[in-house]
Amino acid sequence: MSKVSGEGGKMDIVALLGEKRQVIEAALLRYLPDDEHILTQAMRYSLFAGGKRLRPILALLSYEAVGGGDIDIVLPVACALELVHTFTLIHDDLPAMDDDDFRRGKLSNHKKFSEGMAILAGDALMIDGLGLVIRSKANPVLLNKTIAGFTRVLGLSGVSKGQVDDLYGRDKNAKFLRHIHLRKTALYIAFSIWVGALLAGGNDDTLVHLFKAGVCAGMGFQIRDDVLDLISSKEELGKTPGKDNNDDKLTYPALYGLERSKKMANSYINRAKRIFKGLGASWLPLIELTNYLVERVK
Amino acid sequence: MSKVSGEGGKMDIVALLGEKRQVIEAALLRYLPDDEHILTQAMRYSLFAGGKRLRPILALLSYEAVGGGDIDIVLPVACALELVHTFTLIHDDLPAMDDDDFRRGKLSNHKKFSEGMAILAGDALMIDGLGLVIRSKANPVLLNKTIAGFTRVLGLSGVSKGQVDDLYGRDKNAKFLRHIHLRKTALYIAFSIWVGALLAGGNDDTLVHLFKAGVCAGMGFQIRDDVLDLISSKEELGKTPGKDNNDDKLTYPALYGLERSKKMANSYINRAKRIFKGLGASWLPLIELTNYLVERVK
Repeated sequence: MSKVSGEGGKMDIVALLGEKRQVIEAALLRYLPDDEHILTQAMRYSLFAGGKRLRPILALLSYEAVGGGDIDIVLPVACALELVHTFTLIHDDLPAMDDDDFRRGKLSNHKKFSEGMAILAGDALMIDGLGLVIRSKANPVLLNKTIAGFTRVLGLSGVSKGQVDDLYGRDKNAKFLRHIHLRKTALYIAFSIWVGALLAGGNDDTLVHLFKAGVCAGMGFQIRDDVLDLISSKEELGKTPGKDNNDDKLTYPALYGLERSKKMANSYINRAKRIFKGLGASWLPLIELTNYLVERVK
Repeated sequence: MSKVSGEGGKMDIVALLGEKRQVIEAALLRYLPDDEHILTQAMRYSLFAGGKRLRPILALLSYEAVGGGDIDIVLPVACALELVHTFTLIHDDLPAMDDDDFRRGKLSNHKKFSEGMAILAGDALMIDGLGLVIRSKANPVLLNKTIAGFTRVLGLSGVSKGQVDDLYGRDKNAKFLRHIHLRKTALYIAFSIWVGALLAGGNDDTLVHLFKAGVCAGMGFQIRDDVLDLISSKEELGKTPGKDNNDDKLTYPALYGLERSKKMANSYINRAKRIFKGLGASWLPLIELTNYLVERVK
């Protein structure tokens, strides 16, 4: 169903991503309809700002790879991943955090609306994102595991802690940088893959392997992001380039140089691909997508 | 077990509240232990700032009134109510919102730490609060309903919308003020009572009545808050008095005058008490607590 074949039978990952992205966009429009309230406008402004929908697509592909066939089980959770991800972006951009005026080539939420509105739009995306999980038709035990997973990778032990350490931490070494990238990006990528398999009834062994693969894919993705931030122009990237390298900001290129960073990203991605490969032929789309994560130019 | 009798057999509500509060305090200390990370410090600073623990106590009393007897079912959810409530207080106090330097007689979170830390401590309290729900031993279907309820009263249709309208709304009439108080306070109070009964296996009819009673109790509580804000000194209240009446801030006393506001608070409380009374003798503690909500001086 979701296999998009290019010339010579090779999978056309770009076409596959486009197909899946359409499914996600349509669902997001349904789940967060325009009721003309200003809070909804602020939430929709950032939710529909042209994101790649990477995390929901990872969940969809993982769900399908395990053999799941009911879109009403996976789609609400996949979209929840995007609402919650958008919450983290809006709060990260705030003046009290990274203070970024642009995101994906558009004004960031607090520049378009106001700081107060941006904080509340983020809060509501977080809350209603988790509320969306409960609309899945999955069995209640799996939904509780999903909520538990979401809160574990996001809160005091996850993204929130990563953002605090990124803003206020003083260590400038490799271990600390890995800790930041792991908590701010990789764990959530891993969770996106893990949760798709969970909802499709994947066994414990598969879930453990997938989480490891997801962490590797997420680390590769984030290191690629560091690299792109350094080499891309503003037009290509949609945000202020080189910003991550201001103020002694810790990044992989800053610590290891550009070439070594590229190699490290590739190494992580290769580890992820090996794990997917070990799980069988149905994981080919995940392998292609993981590959795409380090080959992308924005 | 939780019946505290004063002289002549009359329930001593203050002693009962003290007893329940100790249970909540001990549980909160267990659920958010001090790991010495700065984010945890910021979360604990506001969580242990001397709150009345009203919402968790409402959930406990409601759980017991329906006949629930397993503390491991209700306690994580009761504490989740307090973590999430603390999240709303921290964000409300931010400079981009109500800009309040004090809360409960102490520096507000962003004054004690920083704006960035306060936003993230709020985020993490929200996230880990919902994560706490899943630690309840209740059956998974009830936990799904609990999460759904939390997100409904907090997000785009609840507290977040109420705060947006409070900050940016232009209507200055009675209907609008009721809308604000309902969304910012009363729905969450109602949910706190409702969820205790839900977890104890309360039937649908009881749950509907309880939610109505909770909305009335919550409205009475908030109007009393408006009144107290006007008449109390800073020492008694623990926050800047009269602040709610600056800048044409819409409050019940501003709209109806002090005496009529007191009567309206009482009227709401009486409606709540009548509903509790109709549910039977086991609801006496809830009646006493509801009474206390309009008799309190801080």
